[in-house]
Amino acid sequence: MAAQRPPYQRLGDVAFSKVEKVNAELFTLTYGAVVVQLLKDSEDVEQTSIQLEKMGYNIGVRIIDEFLAKANAGTCTDFKETGEVIAKVAFRMFLGVTVDCRHVVEPNAPADAMPAFHLIIVDNPLVDFVELPEHCSTLAYCNLLCGVVRGALEMVGMRVETKLLKDTLWGDEHTEISVSLKELVHEQYRDDDE
Amino acid sequence: MAAQRPPYQRLGDVAFSKVEKVNAELFTLTYGAVVVQLLKDSEDVEQTSIQLEKMGYNIGVRIIDEFLAKANAGTCTDFKETGEVIAKVAFRMFLGVTVDCRHVVEPNAPADAMPAFHLIIVDNPLVDFVELPEHCSTLAYCNLLCGVVRGALEMVGMRVETKLLKDTLWGDEHTEISVSLKELVHEQYRDDDE
Repeated sequence: MAAQRPPYQRLGDVAFSKVEKVNAELFTLTYGAVVVQLLKDSEDVEQTSIQLEKMGYNIGVRIIDEFLAKANAGTCTDFKETGEVIAKVAFRMFLGVTVDCRHVVEPNAPADAMPAFHLIIVDNPLVDFVELPEHCSTLAYCNLLCGVVRGALEMVGMRVETKLLKDTLWGDEHTEISVSLKELVHEQYRDDDE
Repeated sequence: MAAQRPPYQRLGDVAFSKVEKVNAELFTLTYGAVVVQLLKDSEDVEQTSIQLEKMGYNIGVRIIDEFLAKANAGTCTDFKETGEVIAKVAFRMFLGVTVDCRHVVEPNAPADAMPAFHLIIVDNPLVDFVELPEHCSTLAYCNLLCGVVRGALEMVGMRVETKLLKDTLWGDEHTEISVSLKELVHEQYRDDDE
């Protein structure tokens, strides 16, 4: 859907390829510490959910480069394929889990409706060891993932809305994120010929 | 130095062993987002450094279980060996890098002085893509690591002081953390016979 961008240059490249994995528990606990800190600072569950999404967005706009450079995923022909690549390649690459992608057709949707998919995460490493205390029971703990997907897709020309629909922390059987396409944005540096 | 504790039980165990690594860049960017958030909230570089250390401490007191359960590192005979195990086993296991451990003998130290070591981290994944802006140039960006070491050691009966001595972000050639033993704490659940 978008031209593949060259990987950005960075000095740490060689070192990075040697150390490209870290322990999942370290990540999970670090993320937990972040959420606790945000909750303490804002003292507001809804604000914390919004902050986590923004934080994820900022990660997404940077992590897309790593994905394009390493995943050899090619160019997606449609939004359906984008969903499959996120589910099967990106989640595996970054979180070490594969995710199911369910394409959504709204009943009674007009023929030109924008497409959407749901990402279904069964083994969500973010929620290991986590329980939401009662006063935070509505927290969108995994909203970081929504933000990452939104930020990454925006960098390749797709403005989307994402939403955390289900979460094991809310008593659901899995984590589920909806991703709805809102607009295809042509990138300025792309040739008109493409 | 301390009795090995049984690994704690958790429901996610099976899932966890399948997904025990995540992409280092995701971790690095998430950590960066944390630091930015803390800086924004406290608007104080020193306070942020302190917060990062505390956050690390809270991670350390939990991550020690994972270490004891998976590393098969046995019991250390002295603090020197503790340093070697942290450098060669723990950093490899959690951050995917090996670290040098330099044992420190203070000049003119009394014979019964408490031991200390320095951890020298050349390929520090935390600082990939990071530059400190001028108004944050004194930030102890990697203080999380100091806290993790302090928290983890406290759980196995060693009260230590840790300090970030050098950092590539400060223009040094590597990251260097001092770890000084302050007190050996006997754990309550340990048998007197041991």
